[in-house]
Amino acid sequence: MKRTSRDIRTANRYRVLRQIIAASPTSRQELAAATGLSLATVATLVGELLALGMITEVGFEDSAGGRPRGLVAVNTSGGALIGVDLAETYVRVELFDLALNVLARADEALGPGEDRPEQVAGRVAAAVGSVVARAGDGAARVLGAGVSVPGQVDRDTGVCVYAPNWDWHDVPLLDLLAGHLACPLYLDNPLRACAVAELWSGAARGHGDAVVVNLGTGVGAGLVLGGGVHRGVTNSAGEWGHTTLVLDGRPCHCGNHGCVETYTGAPGIMLNLREAQPDSPLLRPGDQTATVDALAAGVRAGDPVAVRVLRETARYLGAGVADLINLFNPEVVVLSSWVAAAFGEPLLDEVRAAVTRHALRRPLAAARIVLSPIPTDPVCLGAATFALEGALQPAGKGAGRHAVGGPR
Amino acid sequence: MKRTSRDIRTANRYRVLRQIIAASPTSRQELAAATGLSLATVATLVGELLALGMITEVGFEDSAGGRPRGLVAVNTSGGALIGVDLAETYVRVELFDLALNVLARADEALGPGEDRPEQVAGRVAAAVGSVVARAGDGAARVLGAGVSVPGQVDRDTGVCVYAPNWDWHDVPLLDLLAGHLACPLYLDNPLRACAVAELWSGAARGHGDAVVVNLGTGVGAGLVLGGGVHRGVTNSAGEWGHTTLVLDGRPCHCGNHGCVETYTGAPGIMLNLREAQPDSPLLRPGDQTATVDALAAGVRAGDPVAVRVLRETARYLGAGVADLINLFNPEVVVLSSWVAAAFGEPLLDEVRAAVTRHALRRPLAAARIVLSPIPTDPVCLGAATFALEGALQPAGKGAGRHAVGGPR
Repeated sequence: MKRTSRDIRTANRYRVLRQIIAASPTSRQELAAATGLSLATVATLVGELLALGMITEVGFEDSAGGRPRGLVAVNTSGGALIGVDLAETYVRVELFDLALNVLARADEALGPGEDRPEQVAGRVAAAVGSVVARAGDGAARVLGAGVSVPGQVDRDTGVCVYAPNWDWHDVPLLDLLAGHLACPLYLDNPLRACAVAELWSGAARGHGDAVVVNLGTGVGAGLVLGGGVHRGVTNSAGEWGHTTLVLDGRPCHCGNHGCVETYTGAPGIMLNLREAQPDSPLLRPGDQTATVDALAAGVRAGDPVAVRVLRETARYLGAGVADLINLFNPEVVVLSSWVAAAFGEPLLDEVRAAVTRHALRRPLAAARIVLSPIPTDPVCLGAATFALEGALQPAGKGAGRHAVGGPR
Repeated sequence: MKRTSRDIRTANRYRVLRQIIAASPTSRQELAAATGLSLATVATLVGELLALGMITEVGFEDSAGGRPRGLVAVNTSGGALIGVDLAETYVRVELFDLALNVLARADEALGPGEDRPEQVAGRVAAAVGSVVARAGDGAARVLGAGVSVPGQVDRDTGVCVYAPNWDWHDVPLLDLLAGHLACPLYLDNPLRACAVAELWSGAARGHGDAVVVNLGTGVGAGLVLGGGVHRGVTNSAGEWGHTTLVLDGRPCHCGNHGCVETYTGAPGIMLNLREAQPDSPLLRPGDQTATVDALAAGVRAGDPVAVRVLRETARYLGAGVADLINLFNPEVVVLSSWVAAAFGEPLLDEVRAAVTRHALRRPLAAARIVLSPIPTDPVCLGAATFALEGALQPAGKGAGRHAVGGPR
């Protein structure tokens, strides 16, 4: 867990490429000003990115009175990246260029019985194949594929340690996928994917400390601290969904009681609705997505039960988000994932009001609370970004550590 | 909040000196192995520390078959550091050498009426003067003084933004002290002081991610993440005492309800005792320290009420510490400050048992929970360490930013 010189060099590569993606074309001088790194360090890092083929020289700009400054930009044809959002009920695969634009997409539903690791790996591989085929030349040089799994993962070994939805324990998912896919593979989970997506392409970009609150079937917090993703010692940091909000409260599948997730995850929201009106016509038994969509539509139409359920959910969320603000003192809190997207602004307004009732004044004043600005699936984007980060690691560390496929 | 090249160089200076303090004498090769930095980087940093007079060359050791290796050690006479623990009811000042050994100590009680900033600053200055006088030659070159205040502080301006106990708002404490003291001054609070103390000299040394749980009148968490102290964007991270454990529970002075502090801070523990036995002979009304001492003695003697109060307190603490483990996934959780020291092992045992009931299996397995091994006042030690860190900052940043006193 020690930061070595090599870790710092890699982190600086990330920062420079992230800035180039954000504002291409750009000069070394602008990059130094934007990243806080010295011009000499930036020049070295730009040279490395040029050698990797990730960026290209694109001309010069006049500088006032001085020598013309060389400009660089992302080499969008320098390679492609694959992001896989393997979720409880579907597989979504997207292909990206090096500027993290989506080139192609495939969606496949996963049936309730489809939970054997070999089955799931086969479905993922098929979806990847279909996307790569559809992208044509754009997929000529796939630098890697990132895979997000809803559970706890060991990144170094590519093993899914625990996935509650499928009751997976120690499934060697990357080894299974390597039988189908030849590029370097990277495994992580949606908390980390959403954090990396906001850091490279969303509301956390340019911020040292940000918390990305994931609101879906499960809930959790992706942590951006000191400009990088905080993973913890065994890559399981951010389990905010399993912090206690109501001591001895609702039972949680984790074995604890009163966890944030039991009140604010999609099944918890369904329970909030049942408690508000047991026979509500908004309730779609067994279908979280449909129920959340019906509630969101009800809120927009002014349905009093829907509004009450939103407020009650935001009351729990507000207390939990205030805890994150008091603990981390971040610059920004991002509400992400499908439940946040479904409710949108009304949820944001209620959460902001509830947070104000709970948080300490000084950290509250420093923290903006926003909805994720990422217009596409943040999990696919984040998973593809894992592959980009992997390709940026120095030789002997990146691909060698994570990859189980053939040479790239 | 961006990490600049200069920040990284400073962090590396800290790491190398920390390792030299931990194991003197030592060679550049050993330092490279222990820190993960390259030998070239270590050689540069050792050269800088030699030039600053913080370490000295102390001879050579044979290396198997190669050239003899130069050894360095802390230059204990290279300067002195002052640590001030300004608490609700007392001022404690300690003088340290550069190996962070205590050379002299002064304690003064603060009366209930003594809460005007000028009064308090005068008492601090008097205690510092007495310690410096008593240390004689050891105090010849004071590199700086760190001051810990129980509240929220702005480190850059030296202002105590809010101290609940004295109802201080925006008190320019460093400016007041600068009228009395000529050395560079550094302001922070006990959460940060205890974290830095454990990082340099205690249970967090050599760990990337550690949480230092402060149990006193107030409670909070000092955060060591990625090998450094996490402060947040306005230096108010770690307010774990004001995270919600019991939604709509006991009222807290912060305005929220059910905060961790209301159940586990010393006044909360007194309330736990009152709820267990309203007329308990262990209760010393108006005296937190005496009540906690009486409870701790009762636990050691097997008093059933004392044992019950310890278990009840540990039930809340265990849920709260489990939250920290699930969120941060640290290698170590350190129980620190006077309430933890008073109860000792029995508290540790009960907290460990309670954490096991609440935390997720994977982060739980990675986290050791220990009592602070620091035998002296960790707040004084941490405050002195702020001064040491300040003296290690590159010219133009360290003293210039924090110091308001004369030249050193």
